[in-house]
Amino acid sequence: MNAAAPTLSIFALGGINEIGKNMYAIQYADDIVVIDCGSKFPDESLLGIDLIIPDITYLKENKDKIRALIVTHGHEDHIGGIPYVLKQLDMPIYASRLTLGLIEVKLKEHRLLRQTQLFRIDSDSNIELGTIRLTFFKTNHSIPDCLGVAFHTPEGTVVHTGDFKFDLTPVNDQYPDIHKMADLGKEGVLVLLSESTNAERPGFTPSERLVGEHIEDAFTKARRKIFISTFASNVHRVQQVIDAALKTNRKLALLGRSMVNVVSVASELGYLNVPEGMLIDASEVNRMAPDKVAVLCTGSQGEPMAALSRLASSNHRQVEIMREDTVIIAASPIPGNERNVAHIVDHLFLLGAKVIYGSGSVTGMHVSGHASQEELKLMLTLMKPKYFIPIHGEFRMLYQHRLLAESVGVEKENIYIINNGDVVDINQSVAQQSRKIPAGNILVDGLGIGDVGNIVLRDRRQLAEDGMLVIVITLSKTEGKIVSGPDTISRGFVYVRGSEDLLNDVNQLVITTINDLQETNVNKWGVMKQSIKEAVGQFLYNKTKRRPMILPIIIEV
Amino acid sequence: MNAAAPTLSIFALGGINEIGKNMYAIQYADDIVVIDCGSKFPDESLLGIDLIIPDITYLKENKDKIRALIVTHGHEDHIGGIPYVLKQLDMPIYASRLTLGLIEVKLKEHRLLRQTQLFRIDSDSNIELGTIRLTFFKTNHSIPDCLGVAFHTPEGTVVHTGDFKFDLTPVNDQYPDIHKMADLGKEGVLVLLSESTNAERPGFTPSERLVGEHIEDAFTKARRKIFISTFASNVHRVQQVIDAALKTNRKLALLGRSMVNVVSVASELGYLNVPEGMLIDASEVNRMAPDKVAVLCTGSQGEPMAALSRLASSNHRQVEIMREDTVIIAASPIPGNERNVAHIVDHLFLLGAKVIYGSGSVTGMHVSGHASQEELKLMLTLMKPKYFIPIHGEFRMLYQHRLLAESVGVEKENIYIINNGDVVDINQSVAQQSRKIPAGNILVDGLGIGDVGNIVLRDRRQLAEDGMLVIVITLSKTEGKIVSGPDTISRGFVYVRGSEDLLNDVNQLVITTINDLQETNVNKWGVMKQSIKEAVGQFLYNKTKRRPMILPIIIEV
Repeated sequence: MNAAAPTLSIFALGGINEIGKNMYAIQYADDIVVIDCGSKFPDESLLGIDLIIPDITYLKENKDKIRALIVTHGHEDHIGGIPYVLKQLDMPIYASRLTLGLIEVKLKEHRLLRQTQLFRIDSDSNIELGTIRLTFFKTNHSIPDCLGVAFHTPEGTVVHTGDFKFDLTPVNDQYPDIHKMADLGKEGVLVLLSESTNAERPGFTPSERLVGEHIEDAFTKARRKIFISTFASNVHRVQQVIDAALKTNRKLALLGRSMVNVVSVASELGYLNVPEGMLIDASEVNRMAPDKVAVLCTGSQGEPMAALSRLASSNHRQVEIMREDTVIIAASPIPGNERNVAHIVDHLFLLGAKVIYGSGSVTGMHVSGHASQEELKLMLTLMKPKYFIPIHGEFRMLYQHRLLAESVGVEKENIYIINNGDVVDINQSVAQQSRKIPAGNILVDGLGIGDVGNIVLRDRRQLAEDGMLVIVITLSKTEGKIVSGPDTISRGFVYVRGSEDLLNDVNQLVITTINDLQETNVNKWGVMKQSIKEAVGQFLYNKTKRRPMILPIIIEV
Repeated sequence: MNAAAPTLSIFALGGINEIGKNMYAIQYADDIVVIDCGSKFPDESLLGIDLIIPDITYLKENKDKIRALIVTHGHEDHIGGIPYVLKQLDMPIYASRLTLGLIEVKLKEHRLLRQTQLFRIDSDSNIELGTIRLTFFKTNHSIPDCLGVAFHTPEGTVVHTGDFKFDLTPVNDQYPDIHKMADLGKEGVLVLLSESTNAERPGFTPSERLVGEHIEDAFTKARRKIFISTFASNVHRVQQVIDAALKTNRKLALLGRSMVNVVSVASELGYLNVPEGMLIDASEVNRMAPDKVAVLCTGSQGEPMAALSRLASSNHRQVEIMREDTVIIAASPIPGNERNVAHIVDHLFLLGAKVIYGSGSVTGMHVSGHASQEELKLMLTLMKPKYFIPIHGEFRMLYQHRLLAESVGVEKENIYIINNGDVVDINQSVAQQSRKIPAGNILVDGLGIGDVGNIVLRDRRQLAEDGMLVIVITLSKTEGKIVSGPDTISRGFVYVRGSEDLLNDVNQLVITTINDLQETNVNKWGVMKQSIKEAVGQFLYNKTKRRPMILPIIIEV
């Protein structure tokens, strides 16, 4: 590295080798600009954890250099970490109108709205943040108002695509800024960071309009009530449901907190066109003629507490699904959610409903919001980057994206598949990847951020598998004899009733273990507890093939 | 019902509204014949449970009437419950050769082999069990030696298909007995029970030979080592791997206990043709020329302890996957396993392998073993049943299967979608469904069968989510004053270090709670424990938004 000229550094704090928790940053000299601040949901192994956010140790250590947090769009994997991160680190936030609207809802909930500086940008914005100048371009995605970002630095231009697809017939006429992208490419892009979610999928992702056509068909055919479930944040799809209801003379009720919230924010900000008198209250649905009403609801991923799940199990206070009603699940199940969705479909059939479900490629009721291989190649071709860093994706997606970049002419050695925490440094147009900064998963559990660690999780796993057995013994201080107990308390291991013999054997074993120790004059508590744990643990494993957590409690009186 | 003539009864003990744990029975007069005895794996909500088997209360109450357990084929969802059920109830078992071989392995493990009567049958068998005569027909499936069963009773003939597809070009020339099926239909089938696993899938399931062609292509193209992973029990596919290795002059190593077991049983019994000298030991793989060796291994569903997973994480003792090696996952991920499989693919790409993965319909490396809609219609057409009971499937599959039956002419009112425990009684050709027998999930946990119930599971869930806090207090018997404590022990809730203040507050709260109670002279232990639970529970929820299990322990001295 040349000490004379500052270095341009690019690093990921989240979003690499994972889906979710996106967070990247660009640093030039003493200016850091952060891009996105997402969260992700824990897998089953992280028992009891609510949310995962990025580790921002590096940002906290360099907080004087941070000029802004730029947010590309309003999905949880790009904004979900904001309130938790802002509690540790204050940053001004720049985002487009709808994105800002959704961020504000979060900040209000966490009582952070007043103290946070928010700046509205659009695709025409041109902002200077220290030595870095930022311009933007519109992209299409499954939520409106998405931006790609170009960072113009003295070392060269870095482009971050955000999430995107190329929808050439977008629902709201918000066309992608292809000419701007082409101009960036012509002027010269030093580094492209492009999203990889669908890098395994051949072809070109269909336009959202396709879904609209299928929704309209289904609305036209239905003779009784229609229920349609989709992601609340997919405002374009919500618009198409509203349009279909209008065309078929149906009123529309909204079910589910996030559906009500998003429709309210989006129509206030002008992203949704809801005709006067179209929306009705949930309480009116059952009273109306079945061919004059439709219901738009949350829960398309089978979330157990969401509206669709409650409707399917006839648990909704106000609305009922009846025989011959039509239910449309306008979403493909995300891997991991298939069983929950299938469960709901079973219940819907039990109610006698006509159900349109399954993969979007079969039903036409869902298209992805992410670029497939041909679109990824188009982005790479428009940008013609010298260096390429595939982002947003698990390793196999980044790998496939690298192959795509090679196929359109990016030099193999100029492609960096990085990890969260890896830094790509560029100085005088020469890139190298050798440094690391802290990165990782910070677990949010209840109100605690990062206070649940490996030992707590290991304990939870043992408790979850086999439960526990508490053994209480009172010993006399003077003679070390057992005064009372052992008494055993079982939770999550066996019922006490029916296991009396087993627990009596445990008590006898504890007494023998203590007496054996006393005879050899080893009566320190630590040793005693350890001996009880081992003896009882081995005994129970032999008898039951289970390994409950054993917690001996010794009281001296 | 006519009291004069005996009634024919058909009931399900497992396999309805679920995938797995198949068990059905036919009763005529005092003769009961049981079909299959499967197990299934628990979902995530059943913490720590190893296996689920059917409730056989009814069979135990009628054990004098049970003539046989007929097993249609050797998959776990048809044989997995056998050892656990045999511990409660002795039954003679009838099955084809390979099926019996796989059952014997299980009985040996559980030391039940010597005491169990086993009878070998084949598609030509004709056996009388009291008033019921049984004949059989060959079907195709993803394991050899599958049988459908016809129960000839004085009331009429009941046909149970087992699992099947119509593979008209089967790998081992074991053609389905279509003519026998046609004859049964011509003679008259009163009731058909047919499997519904793929009732949602349009079309005709492709022949297993298709997979063979793709395997051979991949073997021909590969320049270095080949790893291929599939279900051990899919003996036909294993044969095709052996054939491809032979054609391309590669030796084959087997990795994974079940792969080694099944290949050994299947070649002993003549179901696999393994050329002399083809198989090599795992220890030889790394020593051989990479283009002269292939590895056939378990773990195609991403099972964390299976061979493929260990290979992917470079954790195998003897064998290593190297750059440019080819890895084929010859199986589609079963819903719920996608993430584990994707994880393995990530690791394989990291090792630099060429990976063939994804849905079988894209790679050609997997076809289903179950009949799609056109084959289900073919079975219904061949059998021309008066009554139809769709079996093996979740509700939506049974529902779709009903629609298929209607479409080929079965009367709508003659189709029974039943639940586990429902009985269909037929007397003088008139069917009715009104009775119920006990049915349900029996949970196997370690050595315990059915001893883990709802309370234990509820406790495990609470412990898993938020852990626990044990609070120990010693009170004096005479005055009721606190002698020692409160002492708190946290497991799976918070670290003690870093949470000193919180736990001190808890201790203070416990003291206040006890003192308040004593002043009002309420000092019974139950009330005291309840008050501590409530006070501490509320306090901790307010402070942490977590709800650990609180276990107050009061010692009186």
